Amino acid sequence: MKFRNVKGTRDFYPEPMRIRNWIADAWRRVSLRNGFEEYDAPIFEYLDLLTAKSGQEIAEQLFSFTDRGGRQLAIRPEITPSLARMVNAKINSLPRPIKWFSVPRLCRAENPQRGRLREFFQWNIDVIGEDSGLADAECIFTCVDFLREVGLTPEDAQVRIGSRPLSVSALWAAGVPQADEEKALAALDKRPKLNEDAFANVAKGAGLSGEQIAAVTRFQDCATLDDISAALPDAEPRDIEGLRQLWGQLEAMGVAEYCVLDLRIVRGLAYYTGIVYEVFGGAESRAVAGGGRYDNLLEVLGGPKVGATGFGMGDVVLELVLDEKAKIPPELRQGGLDYFVIDAEDGAFHAVMRTVGALRRAGRSADFSYARRALGKQLKDANRRGAANALLVRADGGLEVKDLRSGEQRPAALSDLLSSA
Amino acid sequence: MKFRNVKGTRDFYPEPMRIRNWIADAWRRVSLRNGFEEYDAPIFEYLDLLTAKSGQEIAEQLFSFTDRGGRQLAIRPEITPSLARMVNAKINSLPRPIKWFSVPRLCRAENPQRGRLREFFQWNIDVIGEDSGLADAECIFTCVDFLREVGLTPEDAQVRIGSRPLSVSALWAAGVPQADEEKALAALDKRPKLNEDAFANVAKGAGLSGEQIAAVTRFQDCATLDDISAALPDAEPRDIEGLRQLWGQLEAMGVAEYCVLDLRIVRGLAYYTGIVYEVFGGAESRAVAGGGRYDNLLEVLGGPKVGATGFGMGDVVLELVLDEKAKIPPELRQGGLDYFVIDAEDGAFHAVMRTVGALRRAGRSADFSYARRALGKQLKDANRRGAANALLVRADGGLEVKDLRSGEQRPAALSDLLSSA
Repeated sequence: MKFRNVKGTRDFYPEPMRIRNWIADAWRRVSLRNGFEEYDAPIFEYLDLLTAKSGQEIAEQLFSFTDRGGRQLAIRPEITPSLARMVNAKINSLPRPIKWFSVPRLCRAENPQRGRLREFFQWNIDVIGEDSGLADAECIFTCVDFLREVGLTPEDAQVRIGSRPLSVSALWAAGVPQADEEKALAALDKRPKLNEDAFANVAKGAGLSGEQIAAVTRFQDCATLDDISAALPDAEPRDIEGLRQLWGQLEAMGVAEYCVLDLRIVRGLAYYTGIVYEVFGGAESRAVAGGGRYDNLLEVLGGPKVGATGFGMGDVVLELVLDEKAKIPPELRQGGLDYFVIDAEDGAFHAVMRTVGALRRAGRSADFSYARRALGKQLKDANRRGAANALLVRADGGLEVKDLRSGEQRPAALSDLLSSA
Repeated sequence: MKFRNVKGTRDFYPEPMRIRNWIADAWRRVSLRNGFEEYDAPIFEYLDLLTAKSGQEIAEQLFSFTDRGGRQLAIRPEITPSLARMVNAKINSLPRPIKWFSVPRLCRAENPQRGRLREFFQWNIDVIGEDSGLADAECIFTCVDFLREVGLTPEDAQVRIGSRPLSVSALWAAGVPQADEEKALAALDKRPKLNEDAFANVAKGAGLSGEQIAAVTRFQDCATLDDISAALPDAEPRDIEGLRQLWGQLEAMGVAEYCVLDLRIVRGLAYYTGIVYEVFGGAESRAVAGGGRYDNLLEVLGGPKVGATGFGMGDVVLELVLDEKAKIPPELRQGGLDYFVIDAEDGAFHAVMRTVGALRRAGRSADFSYARRALGKQLKDANRRGAANALLVRADGGLEVKDLRSGEQRPAALSDLLSSA
C-alpha cells in the first residue's frame, strides 16, 4: 500500500514550511502596519455563495460536495465572496472604512501548471465602504510595501495599472454591443500573455472584428494619460482624472517608482468596476497579484451598494519570482535552536532533563538526545540541528556553554542563561 | 438573497481572529522552543488514506467528494494519516527522531455541539522513529509547557495518563475475547463522560457481562502504580515499569504537578499501542487534548515499523476553558496602531500621505482618515482605532506627537520616530 498526495497539492516538509511561514509572516506584518485587521472565513461555503458573482471561469474550478443533510457545499476558490457575506451580515455595526486582510488557503480544480496549483495561499487586502480613490492608492501602497519588505526592487516587480471603465468605453466606442462586453473583456484579459496573432484569434472568437481589435488595441497601447483623450475622445473625463489623482497619491506615498500605466490590464473576473491592476515579477508570465475596485459586489450578494477595492496575491507565482531573484533567505534552509543540551559525564542525564525543562519554560529553544551517546556524537547532533550553543552538563548540575560558531567554551550559571535575552 | 456560513463553522471577524492567532502563535512558540519543526499537508487527501487506519468513528465524519478525474478525495478530519504518509515517503533520508508539529485546519461532518464544531484547528505534536519513553515524556512536557504559557495552572487543567496495553490486559484478564477488544475499548473510552448506570449500558452493548465490567472498572480505578499489580496480577511488568519511568521523567522536567494517573483513559481511536492521555480543563467534560503512543501506524500506511508518539489539541474546547478561567488577554478585544496621522491644518494632507508612507516603510503601524475632517473628529478616529499616538502634521511637514494615553503633546522630528524602537 503506497499513498501519495493529490496532484497539484503540496506537502510542506519543514524547509518549505519555513519558506511558507516567512512569506505569510511578511504578509501579516505589512498588513498590520498599513492599518488592516485580519479576518478569516470557513474553508467551505454554500455553493450558491461561491457561484453568485464570479465569472464562469471560477465556477468551473470548484471542488463541490453534498453533506449528509443534502446541502450543496464547495471548498472556497477565493475569499472575496466570504468577505462580502461577512461584511453584509454586520454592515450596520462595522465602522467604515473597513480595512481587512486575510491569508486564506484556497482550492481550485484546475490542471496544475507552472505557477498554478490546485491548493494555494493568497494574501487578500480589501477596503470596503470607501468610494475615494485614496483607498485604491492605499491598497497599491500596501502591495508595494510588501514587495519592498521581501527585497523586490522596481526592476524585479512592477504594478501595471489599467482601468475597467476606460476599457469598457473603448469597447463601446469601437461598436462592441454591451451584450458582448463580458466576453470581449475576457479576451482582452488574455492579450498580455499572447503574441499578436494568437490574441487576434482569441478576440475574433469573442466576436470582435479586425477593425474593432485595431481600435481597442490602439487605446490599450496608450503610454500616458494624455494619449488616452486622443485615442478615446468619448472617454469620461472623470475616469482619466481618477487615474491622474491616483498617480499623485502613489507619488506622495513614495511608491510610484513601482507603478506603470498599462491599459492592457482589464482582469478576468466580471465584478470589477474601476481601476484594475496586476503585479508582474521576474520572468514569470503569470501575475503575482491582481485586484482593483469592485463597487457592486456586496449588493449582488444581498447587501447595500458600497464602494470596495482590494487585491489578492498568491504564494505560488510569488515564490517562483522570489526564488529567481534570490530573495529567499538562505538561513531558512535549516532549522535552529538556542541550546543543545548534552550530558558530559555518566549520571548527568537527570540534570540534562532539568536543564532542558528550565530553558524551555524561560522561552529558550532547547533540545537533547534521547539516547545516551558519546559527547562527540551529541555535539554532532547539535550541529545537525543548527544549534547556536551546546550546553555541557555535569552530574552535579554544573554547566559549560560552547558557542558552536566560534568554538569558544566557558563555564556558565543556569540562572544567567535563563535571564539573558 | 441572503447568505450565511454553514452550520458548525465559524466566521473569524477581527476580534475572534486575534484570539485564534494568539492561541496559534503560542502553539508555534512552544513547539519551536521544545525542538519541534513545523510541517503541513494538503487540506484534502485520497479517501483511502484517511480511512486506512482510523476507527469507524472518523470514517463516518468525512466530507468526501469526487474530482473531475473521478478520484475519491476527502477533507482531512485529522492530520496523522498525512503525517504518516509524508514520513513514509522520506523515511530513509529523514534524521531520527523526527520531531514535528503542525497547526492544521480540520473538518468533520458531525453535529455541532458545545466544544465540537465541523471546522476547527488542532495543534499536533509528534515524535517519530523513537521507541524510548522519553519521547512520550517530552510530548507531555510540551503540552504542559503550553498550558503554563497561556496561564493555566495545575488546578485549571490536568493531564490524565492511562495505558492502552494495560487496559487490553485488563479486558483479556476479564475474559473478553480479542475479537471484541476494539468495541470494548470504545465503550471504556466513554466511561469518564457517563454516570455509572449509563456506562454499564454502553459496556453491555459492547458485549461485556456485569462481572467483566466490575473486573475492568476495578483495574481502572487503581489510583497508584502499586495498586495495578494487585488488581491485575497478569499485567506485563514492563508496562507498569514504563509508567513508573515516565513519572520520573515528568518530575525531572518539572511538569509532574500537572499529571495524574487515570486508567479510565483509553482513547477512542484504534491505533494506540502504549501510554495514552487526555487533558481536561475547567468545567468542560470534553478533553482539551489527547494522544499517546501509536507504534504500528506507519506500517499500516505502507511504511516500516517505527515507534511514534504524539498528541492533538483542538482550539474549540481550549478556548472554552481559557474563557472560563479568564486567561484570554483583554487587550485582544481591540486592535491597535502605533500612529494615527492627522492633518492639523488645510493643505497638510500631502504631508500626511508622505508621513504615513515613511512610517510604514520603517515598520511602524500607521493609519489616517480618507476624508478630510475636523481635527477633533480625526482624534476620535484615532481613539476608536486603538492608536497609541496621534501625529499632527502641518502643511510644512512639521509634526507634533500626542500620546493618547497620557494626553501629553510634544513637537517631534520624523527621523526620530523612524529610528526609535
